[in-house]
Amino acid sequence: MTIDTGDTAFILICTALVMLMTPGVGLFYGGLVRRKNLISMFALSFVAFSVVTIQWVLFGYSLAFGSDVGGVIGSLEYVGLSGVGMDGDGIPDLLFMVFQLVFAAVTLAIITSAVAERVKISSFIVFGLLWTTLVYDPLAHWVWGGGWMAELGILDFAGGIVVHISAGFGALALALVIGKRVGFGEYSMEPHNIPMTLLGGALLWFGWFGFNAGSALAADGLAANAFVVTNISAASGALAWMAASWIRGKPSSVGMISGAIAGLGAITPAAGFVGPLQAIIIGVVSGLLCYYALLFRIRQRWDESLDAWAIHGVGGVWGTLAIGIFAIAAVGGVSGLVEGSFNQLLLQAVGAGATVLYAFVVTFVLAKVVDLTMGLRVSEEEEYVGLDISQHGESTQV
Amino acid sequence: MTIDTGDTAFILICTALVMLMTPGVGLFYGGLVRRKNLISMFALSFVAFSVVTIQWVLFGYSLAFGSDVGGVIGSLEYVGLSGVGMDGDGIPDLLFMVFQLVFAAVTLAIITSAVAERVKISSFIVFGLLWTTLVYDPLAHWVWGGGWMAELGILDFAGGIVVHISAGFGALALALVIGKRVGFGEYSMEPHNIPMTLLGGALLWFGWFGFNAGSALAADGLAANAFVVTNISAASGALAWMAASWIRGKPSSVGMISGAIAGLGAITPAAGFVGPLQAIIIGVVSGLLCYYALLFRIRQRWDESLDAWAIHGVGGVWGTLAIGIFAIAAVGGVSGLVEGSFNQLLLQAVGAGATVLYAFVVTFVLAKVVDLTMGLRVSEEEEYVGLDISQHGESTQV
Amino acid sequence: MTIDTGDTAFILICTALVMLMTPGVGLFYGGLVRRKNLISMFALSFVAFSVVTIQWVLFGYSLAFGSDVGGVIGSLEYVGLSGVGMDGDGIPDLLFMVFQLVFAAVTLAIITSAVAERVKISSFIVFGLLWTTLVYDPLAHWVWGGGWMAELGILDFAGGIVVHISAGFGALALALVIGKRVGFGEYSMEPHNIPMTLLGGALLWFGWFGFNAGSALAADGLAANAFVVTNISAASGALAWMAASWIRGKPSSVGMISGAIAGLGAITPAAGFVGPLQAIIIGVVSGLLCYYALLFRIRQRWDESLDAWAIHGVGGVWGTLAIGIFAIAAVGGVSGLVEGSFNQLLLQAVGAGATVLYAFVVTFVLAKVVDLTMGLRVSEEEEYVGLDISQHGESTQV
Repeated sequence: MTIDTGDTAFILICTALVMLMTPGVGLFYGGLVRRKNLISMFALSFVAFSVVTIQWVLFGYSLAFGSDVGGVIGSLEYVGLSGVGMDGDGIPDLLFMVFQLVFAAVTLAIITSAVAERVKISSFIVFGLLWTTLVYDPLAHWVWGGGWMAELGILDFAGGIVVHISAGFGALALALVIGKRVGFGEYSMEPHNIPMTLLGGALLWFGWFGFNAGSALAADGLAANAFVVTNISAASGALAWMAASWIRGKPSSVGMISGAIAGLGAITPAAGFVGPLQAIIIGVVSGLLCYYALLFRIRQRWDESLDAWAIHGVGGVWGTLAIGIFAIAAVGGVSGLVEGSFNQLLLQAVGAGATVLYAFVVTFVLAKVVDLTMGLRVSEEEEYVGLDISQHGESTQV
Repeated sequence: MTIDTGDTAFILICTALVMLMTPGVGLFYGGLVRRKNLISMFALSFVAFSVVTIQWVLFGYSLAFGSDVGGVIGSLEYVGLSGVGMDGDGIPDLLFMVFQLVFAAVTLAIITSAVAERVKISSFIVFGLLWTTLVYDPLAHWVWGGGWMAELGILDFAGGIVVHISAGFGALALALVIGKRVGFGEYSMEPHNIPMTLLGGALLWFGWFGFNAGSALAADGLAANAFVVTNISAASGALAWMAASWIRGKPSSVGMISGAIAGLGAITPAAGFVGPLQAIIIGVVSGLLCYYALLFRIRQRWDESLDAWAIHGVGGVWGTLAIGIFAIAAVGGVSGLVEGSFNQLLLQAVGAGATVLYAFVVTFVLAKVVDLTMGLRVSEEEEYVGLDISQHGESTQV
Repeated sequence: MTIDTGDTAFILICTALVMLMTPGVGLFYGGLVRRKNLISMFALSFVAFSVVTIQWVLFGYSLAFGSDVGGVIGSLEYVGLSGVGMDGDGIPDLLFMVFQLVFAAVTLAIITSAVAERVKISSFIVFGLLWTTLVYDPLAHWVWGGGWMAELGILDFAGGIVVHISAGFGALALALVIGKRVGFGEYSMEPHNIPMTLLGGALLWFGWFGFNAGSALAADGLAANAFVVTNISAASGALAWMAASWIRGKPSSVGMISGAIAGLGAITPAAGFVGPLQAIIIGVVSGLLCYYALLFRIRQRWDESLDAWAIHGVGGVWGTLAIGIFAIAAVGGVSGLVEGSFNQLLLQAVGAGATVLYAFVVTFVLAKVVDLTMGLRVSEEEEYVGLDISQHGESTQV
């Protein structure tokens, strides 16, 4: 029960790095939409961050990390951060709390992509509060807070289940409820600012080191391993997606950075359980898998067009399963298929499957409730004008 | 007198984070001006950083942190960093020096906003050197270097007095001396690049963790507390400003990020003395207060149009007083009004009042002197053409 | 042989900071080219990063840091990171590996500037793999891996030889082989997005703290010294270049940031051997020297137009020699001319000279081989259209 300055220094800075991922998401998506919705897209990430900050401090942290109630939710003992102080075991309790806060925030930021260019900002605030409370907080509790998944032995090092599957499948449900953008499939909706997307991707890659290596909660060899495999999987995913898209035409830079994000999402749950060579395989497979998921999404004519589902959802499922395949006891004490153990893969499949189901269904219901009461989307006229002007009274075209 | 690697690691990285705030200020203000002055605005932040770096190393650090001379200024013992070495108490002396350097630099960067779109770069360099030497260095000495404020027991954890009140009220004085921009109040001077402002705001929020948590000068529970309350106040300020402006129209993203900066400025002096729930109040009040200060500034028709005064000045005063109201002994060993002690609030009022007076008056005099000798502003023709071309021979419109 | 959490925390974060330099290079150069090649320029930095990541993990690290074979190259013992684990001496071995990886990556990213606006992406990937394997890896081995330069006592704290001379003179050779852009010298090729270049420069300055201070491989007084002199040299270089260009006309912001990079490049080899006052001289001289090198390059009509040679090459040579002049025993245990020792300057001249020769000749040969087999550059028509569309099928002009 003593504070280690090295570990504390590390997690303090990692928390700042993960915080930067939320505006990173805003830039990434902001570059992909049409110019008239750029401010809206970027602003939604700040809104998500601010709303989750207050929710988490008031009661979200307690729901996720309060002492377990029946395997499904945390108690209210930490409401208002009561009992969460400057002491702790290795790192201060307050630091663990805020490290978890920035994870919750960036997850909601990813989901903003599902309603790009058509959401009413007031409705998104209400939806976001509900979603974080009823989807994110329980999942965080199940996996990291001593809930039923933790009890079963389902593993998720840095958030494949809690962050990526939940955001990806939540985004798909939300996109299906809010419906397609006006003109979707009829006229071009090309990314208007690819360099901004690349910059956002760079900040995400940078912040992800805090996300994954920080999840060791200490500045040790395990953190170093997580850092290394994170970088390898990102690079592998980028090159794999680039190669796959090159065969069909030219290697787009958006594809390359999407592949990197796919690799990053997939290694997230596995970063504390696999080594460098497994990370190459995980990254390459993730780049290919998410690329084909995107092609599938296009063929389905789903307007989940910034592809949180194809990249975070599919990548997250793959990475969660990959622990069961590639885990090496020498890294994280757990053996996967490659070391002859089948049990972990089964557990991971249960975890991934349950999360897909839970995130999709609950998000669908929440979105429907908000849509039927407040209306999720703006009017068709406001959509034509663009959200920058209609929601914020601002424009990038002065 | 031994170096702790954890504390040293933390402050090294915090210094890098605070350094990034200076170009963050450049981006923030660069997006708010007209396109023809974007390069100028951004470049001024680099100029401020470079000039202060050399000033600080040669004599500024010594004026601020040399042994106390009569309560008002530091001795010249550290001129040229003589006697400032790789040893130290907890962290190396050189590291403490450079951590303080980046604070001095970003303070001058904030003040560049007051002369936006009309300043002559040569005059700004001279003014900046004078201002840092005659305003910043003494204030840093009074509060942190063992001067009269420290003697009295006036508190400022990370720079409410030294950075924000001084920059905010200095900016107001400077704006009054240099005068309004040509056409101010006659034609539109809307922000030309709001996403750039949001990106700058994101880097400021990110860097502020280094600013406030780093001011604990150790990777400990107090740093974690400062980190947490910083984030909470930022989010609270953003939501409060957004709500206040929403009532009058639409929730602008510039308002939201301005509210975040207001919350960040206000929590800066208090970050080591209050807890999470007090931070919500401090942030909300700061968001509202600075918003109404901005409306007041507009009604006064002051062309302090990037609102360093309304946000940093007013927010800094509020945060400095807030210590006297909300300080909790369990956090930083000091009690405010909420714990029944009135004394600290009185002290804080003296500190804030004296700083307002000192910063405003001395800045006004310095600006007048530079204006009467070199001329602070460019010719009317150069102003029409824009500073990018007239001062730098460059353009964003190729 | 035990892990220090403070040192490990520091190097983990420094590695993330240096990683961010690669997209920083992409932004820096992306702003300097014409709009039709912006995506290409930015994307090349990600390509460089991804390709080097895989190369380094598979065999590059072993070539550089495997046990010495005849003074010229490392053994294959670490192929596939075999034997590189979570244990280590002070910091985990895997962490040292990835810290070195990000150096290798950013070096190749600098070289992309030499082929700006005319390179075929497939050929660059092949060239990059060859260059990292045959130029970077041997140089890293010679200086840091126990090779002949290390044996002789040639010093390079953070990469003046390994990174900057190699990238600068490599870039010059590559530019001479690929040839001038169509229309070079006939019509204007002004930077199209200077704020992007300034942002890239800010990220480079920020990341450079990780680069130089992290090269102490510990969070100690030496790291603090490296941090301080890095910042001083950057500021001095910026002000010196600005002043020199001011005399000839107006102080451009691109000049100012170029001067900062010149100062950063020059202090890189010397950061662990000199103190703050020497850093001012090193920075000022570097700013002036690189500025005049740029004027020389223009007079030669070399189309090495983003000036990796003038800034990194010339700055790197100067900084490498500067150790021999300014080294102070109290900082890094080595004495230069100023302390009466001539020997180190001689050694540094040998190191710089050999690297200039090796990097230039081998790069020239590699570039020729790739050009004769695959063709280094796109067709003239593709060059007119721009690489964004011709190489990536993307555009910033939607």
